[in-house]
Amino acid sequence: MPPRTNHSDLVVTLVALAILFTSLIPTSALAEAPTSSTALPSWNDGPAKQAITDFVKSTTDPSSPNFVPPEARIATFDQDGTLWVEHPIYSQVVYCLDRVPAVVKAKPELANVEPFKTVLSGDRGAIAKLSTPDLEKILFATLTGMTVGTFEAEAKKWTDEAKDGRWKRPYTELTYQPMQEVLSYLRANGFKTYIVTGGGQDFVRVYSERVYGIPPEQVVGTAGGTTYSYDTEGKPILTKDPKLLLNDNDAGKPEGIHLMIGRRPYASFGNSSGDQQMLEYTGAGEGARLSMLVLHDDATRE
Amino acid sequence: MPPRTNHSDLVVTLVALAILFTSLIPTSALAEAPTSSTALPSWNDGPAKQAITDFVKSTTDPSSPNFVPPEARIATFDQDGTLWVEHPIYSQVVYCLDRVPAVVKAKPELANVEPFKTVLSGDRGAIAKLSTPDLEKILFATLTGMTVGTFEAEAKKWTDEAKDGRWKRPYTELTYQPMQEVLSYLRANGFKTYIVTGGGQDFVRVYSERVYGIPPEQVVGTAGGTTYSYDTEGKPILTKDPKLLLNDNDAGKPEGIHLMIGRRPYASFGNSSGDQQMLEYTGAGEGARLSMLVLHDDATRE
Repeated sequence: MPPRTNHSDLVVTLVALAILFTSLIPTSALAEAPTSSTALPSWNDGPAKQAITDFVKSTTDPSSPNFVPPEARIATFDQDGTLWVEHPIYSQVVYCLDRVPAVVKAKPELANVEPFKTVLSGDRGAIAKLSTPDLEKILFATLTGMTVGTFEAEAKKWTDEAKDGRWKRPYTELTYQPMQEVLSYLRANGFKTYIVTGGGQDFVRVYSERVYGIPPEQVVGTAGGTTYSYDTEGKPILTKDPKLLLNDNDAGKPEGIHLMIGRRPYASFGNSSGDQQMLEYTGAGEGARLSMLVLHDDATRE
Repeated sequence: MPPRTNHSDLVVTLVALAILFTSLIPTSALAEAPTSSTALPSWNDGPAKQAITDFVKSTTDPSSPNFVPPEARIATFDQDGTLWVEHPIYSQVVYCLDRVPAVVKAKPELANVEPFKTVLSGDRGAIAKLSTPDLEKILFATLTGMTVGTFEAEAKKWTDEAKDGRWKRPYTELTYQPMQEVLSYLRANGFKTYIVTGGGQDFVRVYSERVYGIPPEQVVGTAGGTTYSYDTEGKPILTKDPKLLLNDNDAGKPEGIHLMIGRRPYASFGNSSGDQQMLEYTGAGEGARLSMLVLHDDATRE
């Protein structure tokens, strides 16, 4: 690991953030966060909360040496494990597994081919042991080959209906209330909030506005190419290709931020080693920057 | 060419748009466009202007069947020949040619290698005859290999100082007043305006906010990859790679729009065959859509 940069005025990396109330509530119940001392109500008073409110004061007060003009206020958030649950497996992987029967129905010859055969068996133990190359086969088969419109409709239907096995609630309700408060608090202070996720960009865009108040164009994720062509009626279509353009993990996060946003964030939030480079890149900028590692998805607090 | 789709309520493709006053004025002199009948003051009354104002009324009136919620109001604009001049050669190509001496200074062995030798000769006739592969060599040599920060500084310096040979004014002042008015008018009506250019994404982002009021994250352009690493002091850097991720021309425009924005535009403006697919893709959406081909860069009106 390279030496950690520390020339910024405010780079705070906090591990095991002390959040007591990681209650999971529907986002529709969230009101706009206030800008005053009542911000972040579900956070304990402590260094983590203080770091966030200090950062916001420092970057939004016009008399502050660290003042950031509104148009440059960019904040990026990892999703899985940072904004919503990631255990026992990524929600998008559940989506892909759930799609396998439909894929096999369209291509019956796959029924006796691995890894599809294992997925169809319903044997959870065997499914959990699938190798990475096998999982990639499932991802390509369920996330590519269809038009962009067809994919959006399928993914929307799933996110509307599917429920997490533990909580018996839609995945889109399993977001972390304290982080929803951070999103709202930063937006109320002029920050443009982005998701920067290792998950599929097209997948997360389906629900990002409804669940996080983040529009599709502010979702950066692992992205494949598309091909523009015409359907049999001459109507333009975009088809999702099994070709990876951006692997938005690790070093791919700052690379993706440059590609899709073109500015270095002033604040970044992540929860795992896959976010390290994004947090470093954010922290290495001039002036006040906030790089936060939030660990709140342990079994006890979930 | 595939059959033109025509199921939208309002798809207007106007060739040879009747604009009398394509005066070139500094954008700093532009005020926010009004939303009323005083919109688009430098446009002649006629079908082109009418199509734009009808489209805006139809999509922003809550009682209209074609009402579009504010968050979905996306409008995309080609740049070269649509928003600013493109003759006799693209401004970015001038930038690349102007950078050649600095590249050769850093790598003296290139002085006697083509196409660099021809560029250094200053022989305009010979430079104008360079082949596409030769031009690509110049583009890769001048647009890649440096950090993102170094490139931004070099491009900013050039756009601040370089002047067009015909008008003796900075390139960034050679924008089309009628199109600046369209940008302002759409923004005043809740549209998010994007540049979707065959030009380099990183290049256009350097001046887009100052020149068009369009922030860097709303510029989609031809884009190369970057590599995240650390400099000798351990500071994170992003280096521009000679690897093409998105060729944002022709079919690449709707593909780029999907990658970078993730929503189909409601309005698109272009001026050449390289914009055809973007205009088709926009026009093929549901409800009211505006696809406009503007031809205003002929010698007489420039």
